[in-house]
Amino acid sequence: MSNYEPKRINIKSIKNPEFLKELNYRELDLLSEDIKNYILNVTSKSGGHLSSNLGVIDATIALCRSFNFPKDKIIFDVGHQCYTYKILTGRSLERFRLKDGTSGFQKMSESEYDAFEAGHSSTSISAAVGFAYARDIKKENYDIIAFIGDSSIANGLAFEGLNNGSSGNHKVIIVVNDNNMSISPAVGALSKFFTGLSISAFYRKSKNAYRKILVWNFLGRKIYSLSKKIKNWVKRHVIRIGIFDNLGYKVLGPIDGHNIKRMEATFAKAKKVPQSVVIIIQTVKGKGYKFAEEDNVGTWHGVSTFNKKTGKLPNDNHHSWSEFYEKLVAEKMETDKNVVTIVPATGFGSYLKPVFDKYPDRCFDVGIAEEHALTMSSAISISGLHPIISIYSTFLQRGYDQLSHDLARMNCDSTILIDRAGLVGQDGETHQGIYDEQFLLGIPNVTVAMAASKCEAEILFKESFNHHGPFCIRYPRESFDDTKQENIELSYGKWREIIKGNNTCIVSVGPVGVQLSREIKSQNLDVTLVDAIYQKPMDEEYIQKLLNYKRIIIYDPYSVKEGFASILSSKLVSLKYKGDIVVKAIPNTFVKQATIEEQRQEFGLTINDIIDLISSK
Amino acid sequence: MSNYEPKRINIKSIKNPEFLKELNYRELDLLSEDIKNYILNVTSKSGGHLSSNLGVIDATIALCRSFNFPKDKIIFDVGHQCYTYKILTGRSLERFRLKDGTSGFQKMSESEYDAFEAGHSSTSISAAVGFAYARDIKKENYDIIAFIGDSSIANGLAFEGLNNGSSGNHKVIIVVNDNNMSISPAVGALSKFFTGLSISAFYRKSKNAYRKILVWNFLGRKIYSLSKKIKNWVKRHVIRIGIFDNLGYKVLGPIDGHNIKRMEATFAKAKKVPQSVVIIIQTVKGKGYKFAEEDNVGTWHGVSTFNKKTGKLPNDNHHSWSEFYEKLVAEKMETDKNVVTIVPATGFGSYLKPVFDKYPDRCFDVGIAEEHALTMSSAISISGLHPIISIYSTFLQRGYDQLSHDLARMNCDSTILIDRAGLVGQDGETHQGIYDEQFLLGIPNVTVAMAASKCEAEILFKESFNHHGPFCIRYPRESFDDTKQENIELSYGKWREIIKGNNTCIVSVGPVGVQLSREIKSQNLDVTLVDAIYQKPMDEEYIQKLLNYKRIIIYDPYSVKEGFASILSSKLVSLKYKGDIVVKAIPNTFVKQATIEEQRQEFGLTINDIIDLISSK
Repeated sequence: MSNYEPKRINIKSIKNPEFLKELNYRELDLLSEDIKNYILNVTSKSGGHLSSNLGVIDATIALCRSFNFPKDKIIFDVGHQCYTYKILTGRSLERFRLKDGTSGFQKMSESEYDAFEAGHSSTSISAAVGFAYARDIKKENYDIIAFIGDSSIANGLAFEGLNNGSSGNHKVIIVVNDNNMSISPAVGALSKFFTGLSISAFYRKSKNAYRKILVWNFLGRKIYSLSKKIKNWVKRHVIRIGIFDNLGYKVLGPIDGHNIKRMEATFAKAKKVPQSVVIIIQTVKGKGYKFAEEDNVGTWHGVSTFNKKTGKLPNDNHHSWSEFYEKLVAEKMETDKNVVTIVPATGFGSYLKPVFDKYPDRCFDVGIAEEHALTMSSAISISGLHPIISIYSTFLQRGYDQLSHDLARMNCDSTILIDRAGLVGQDGETHQGIYDEQFLLGIPNVTVAMAASKCEAEILFKESFNHHGPFCIRYPRESFDDTKQENIELSYGKWREIIKGNNTCIVSVGPVGVQLSREIKSQNLDVTLVDAIYQKPMDEEYIQKLLNYKRIIIYDPYSVKEGFASILSSKLVSLKYKGDIVVKAIPNTFVKQATIEEQRQEFGLTINDIIDLISSK
Repeated sequence: MSNYEPKRINIKSIKNPEFLKELNYRELDLLSEDIKNYILNVTSKSGGHLSSNLGVIDATIALCRSFNFPKDKIIFDVGHQCYTYKILTGRSLERFRLKDGTSGFQKMSESEYDAFEAGHSSTSISAAVGFAYARDIKKENYDIIAFIGDSSIANGLAFEGLNNGSSGNHKVIIVVNDNNMSISPAVGALSKFFTGLSISAFYRKSKNAYRKILVWNFLGRKIYSLSKKIKNWVKRHVIRIGIFDNLGYKVLGPIDGHNIKRMEATFAKAKKVPQSVVIIIQTVKGKGYKFAEEDNVGTWHGVSTFNKKTGKLPNDNHHSWSEFYEKLVAEKMETDKNVVTIVPATGFGSYLKPVFDKYPDRCFDVGIAEEHALTMSSAISISGLHPIISIYSTFLQRGYDQLSHDLARMNCDSTILIDRAGLVGQDGETHQGIYDEQFLLGIPNVTVAMAASKCEAEILFKESFNHHGPFCIRYPRESFDDTKQENIELSYGKWREIIKGNNTCIVSVGPVGVQLSREIKSQNLDVTLVDAIYQKPMDEEYIQKLLNYKRIIIYDPYSVKEGFASILSSKLVSLKYKGDIVVKAIPNTFVKQATIEEQRQEFGLTINDIIDLISSK
C-alpha cells in the first residue's frame, strides 16, 4: 500500500474520457490538479475564461465518469467553462482561441463530444429539452445534461426552458453550478434563493429538536408515532420549498462540487429518477488559484494574458472606447441627478464599475436579463428620468423586441451605449457585434450613431440627452486613436466632412475614419472623406452633395453590408445617382475566431485595402 | 330598506373612476353586469378581445376603488384586457379599434390614466419595476400595480422582471390573474403550479388535524405549547412553498377575483406591506357569457364580429393563408414521421389545432415562450428531426437572438412559418408584421421567402424540407386569391416571371403579385412583372436581366423599405444599373390601427397605386 504510486496522466496524450473510469480518487485528484495548472498555463498565454473553468474541473471529471459521452449528451451553458471537457475529450489547446485553432466554446465541428454550441448564455436547458423531445420521438435511450451556472439560470430563456422541461414526460438532467459567480455579482431574487439553500440544513436541525422534545416524554412517544404521517407530510413540504421543486423537478443536492465521489453517487441517483432532475452543486470559482478565488467583481472571469505566478494582469495602457464612455457616463451622472445607468451583467466588461460604486442608488445591474433591462428602462424614461443602458452589441440581439416594442414605439428618451460593436476577434461567431446596426436601422424612432474620435463621442453622448427618443451610440472593441482633436461642432443627424477632394467620396463609419484620414493626407490623395457619424437618420443634405461625385465608396467595417451600406446605396439610387458605388462592409456571414485585424484582412476591409481601392481608379 | 332603489350608472356618461367610491356593493354588481353587456355589444360589432375582458370586470372595479389612479399607476400586461378600465376612465368605445378611434390596448395618448403601453405580453412587471425605481429615486409616493395573467407570467421577460422586482427595496404590487387562460391552454410547469395552488387549503386541514391530536391529550397540551416555535417555523415554511415566495415576494391569496369586497380588503393589505407583493386572484374567463365561459381552446379569446344572442361567429368562408399552411403542415406530418411542429401559444390563431389534435406526440405548444421555442427547435433539428416552427411575425421579434445565435449560426434544418407578416390592421402598432423581413435579411444562413399563390406556397413548403438551414416562409393576414393556378416549377432561390413586357419591370413580393398580374393583363399594360419569391437569397441570374430595363419598380407592401427593397436596390447599384429604381414599400414607422386597406392607401401601396405608377411614364 505504501509503495503504491498513483498513476499520473499526461494531459496532452488524452484521446477520450474512457481512461477516467480506471483511475482511483487519489489519481483523480492529481489529474484535477494537473488540469488546473494546464488551464492556467494556456489562459495565461492566450487569454480566455478562467474562474469558471477552474471551478468546474472536478465536476467535469465526475460527469465524464458517470455518463457515457458522446452517446449521452452534455450541453455546457454559454460553453465558456468547457476547457476541462475539451481536454478530457482529446482536444489540443495549442492554438487556443487563435485563427483555425480550438475554440473557447463548444463547437460541433471540433468533436463529436460537443452536442450543441453556444456563446450567449442560458440556452442549455432549452437545448436539452429539444434533445429530449427528439430522443423520445425516436425512441432512443440516453441521458441529456444541461450544465448551467447560477447567474445564467436567472435569464428569461433559461426560465422558459425550465418551465417547459418538467412539464412533459421527457426527462432532462439539469446540473446547476452554484458558484455565486456571474460576469458581475449575481443579482435578483434567485441569487438570494441560492444563498438561502442551506435552509435544508436548518430543517434537519429542527427535526432533531422536535424528536428530542417528544421522545423525552413517555406519552409523547405515542404521539410521536401517531403524528408520523403528519410529520412526513410536513417534511415533504418543508423540503419541497425550492423554485425547482415548484416547477416540478426532482431536486438533488446541494452537494459539494469538488467532491468527485459524492457527485458520482448523486449522478447515479439522477439517472434512476424517472422525471426531470435538477442537481445543485456548489463550487468555488477560480478554485485552486488564489487570485481568482479572491476575486468578487469579475476581474478573473475573462482575461487576456497574465503572469501566472504573480497574478499580474497586463498593464492596460491602451485606451479603450469602453473606458472613455465610462468617463462620460461618470461626468453625466455627477451633474445630472435625473440620469440612471442600467447594465445587464456587463458593467465590469464595459468598465462601468467606478460609476456603479459611486452612484449605487442610480445604477442597476439586472443580471443577465437584457429583455428586462430594456423594458424597465422604458418605464424609467416615461417617469421623466433618463436611462443610460450599456450593453454589448451581441447581447442587444436578445433585446430586439423590447427595444422596438417598448423603447422605440413609445419613443422613450434614452441613451443606449452599444459596446463591442463590430468585429470582436477571438470570441468568434457567437459574439460578433456586426448585426446590430443592420437591425437597428429597421426600427422606427431609433437614432443610430458611431463616433470616429473622442471629440465626436463627447458630442454624440451630449446630444443623446437633448434628443427625443432612443439614441444608440455604437463603439468597437478596440483602442482609440488618441490624436489631439480640433474643436468641432456637430448638429443632430449631420455628417462631418474631414477631407475635401474630387471625383471620389469615401463615406466612412466609425473610428476607422480617423486612421483613414491620416493615411489619405500622408499620401496626398485627392478624395473627399466624410465621416457618417449618424447611420440613422442619414444626413439628407450631405447625400445631395454626394450626387456630384463620380464614385462613392461606402466604408463600414463595423457592420454587415445589409445595414448602413445598403440603405445609403438605395437612397442614392432613389435620388437617381448615376455614378459608381462601391460597398466595403462585412459580408453576411458568421465570422470565425481570429484577431480583428485578421478578420478585416479576410474581408478586404483594412485601411490599406481602402487606400488601394482609391488608387485603383 | 325595501324601497331602496340601487343607483344605476349610465356607462356612456362616465368621466373618471371617482364615482365608484360612492357606490355600494349591490350597485357595483349592477355596474359589473352593465359593463359586461356593453363590452359584449361593442365587441360583437367591432371585434376585439372578449374572454379576458369579461373575466376582469370585477377586478378592475375593485382596483379602481382601492387605488388612486392616475397618481397610482396600473399596467395591464399585454393590455388587451383593459376594456373595463377604458370605460371607467371615461373613454368612448364608439369607434373602437377603427382608424383614429379608441385602441384595443392601453395608449398613453388616449388618457393620462394609461401609464404604459403594450401589445406583446409579459412586459408589465419590468415596467412596474422601472416605475418603482424612478418613483424612489424621485422620492415620490404612490403605488404601482402590474396586472398579469397566468400565461403571460410564464414568459422569460416576466420572469426576469419578477426576479428583479423583489430584490431591491423598490416596492411593486403584482396582481396575478389566474384564469387558466392563454391564447392556447396554459402549458408548462408553472401552469401546474397554479392548478396546485389549493395546497394551502390542504395545509389548513392538516393543521387542524394536528391540533386535535395534540390537544386531546393532556400532556400533549404542554407539548403543543412547547412545540409552538417549531410549528410556527414549519407553518412559515409550509406556506412559503410558492414560486413567488421563493422569489422574495409577500404573497396574498389566491382570492376570488369576482368578489369585489374581498379584493378590496386584500388590496388594502397589499398597500400596507413594505416589500413587493404578489396577489393571486382567481377569475372565470368569459365570466357571465356562457359561450365564452365554456370555451377551452381560445375561440372567444379574440373575436371578429359575432351574434351576441346565439354566440354564432361569422361563417368564415374566406380562405386564410394560415388555414392553407395548416393543410400543408398536416399532410407533411402525416407522411414524414421525422417532422415535429412547435408553436409559442399561437396554435389556435394559426389554425393549427387540427394538427395538434392529430399528432400530439410530435406537436409542442411551449406557451408564450418564443425564445425557448426557437432554441429548443435547434436541438431538435441537430437530433435529425425536422422542426416546423409556426409563429406570428410580430412575436418572432422576441426570438431574434435565438434565431440568429442558435438556429442560423448552427445552420439547423427547419421550417419557420411566419404568420401575419405585413400589415395586420386593427391591432395597430404593437402587432405589425412589417419588420421581420428586414431583420431576417441581416441574419446569415437564413432563407426568406413569400409565396404569391397557393401553388408557390406548396413548392416553397416542400423546398424547406430539402434545403439545408433555417427556411422562413412569410404569409400575410389576409385571404388568398383562389384563382386556379397553372402548374409551375420553381428552383431554390429563383424568382418567377409572371408577365413579360418592356421598359419597366415590377419586382413584386408576395400575394399582391397575383392581383397585380390580373390588373396588368386586363389593362394590357406593357410591363414585366416578376414575383420575387425569395427575398434571401436573391435570384442573381434574374437580377442580371433587370439591368436591361429603363425602370424597375420594387413593390413590397409586406415590409419596411429597409428590407428587401433597399437590399435589391443596392445590389442593382453594385452591378452599375443606371436606370430608375422606384421603391414601393412601407416607410420606417410604427403603423397605427386601421384596416389593412386603409393602411396601404395611406402609404400609396394599393394595386391601383402601382397601376397608376406604371402608367405615369
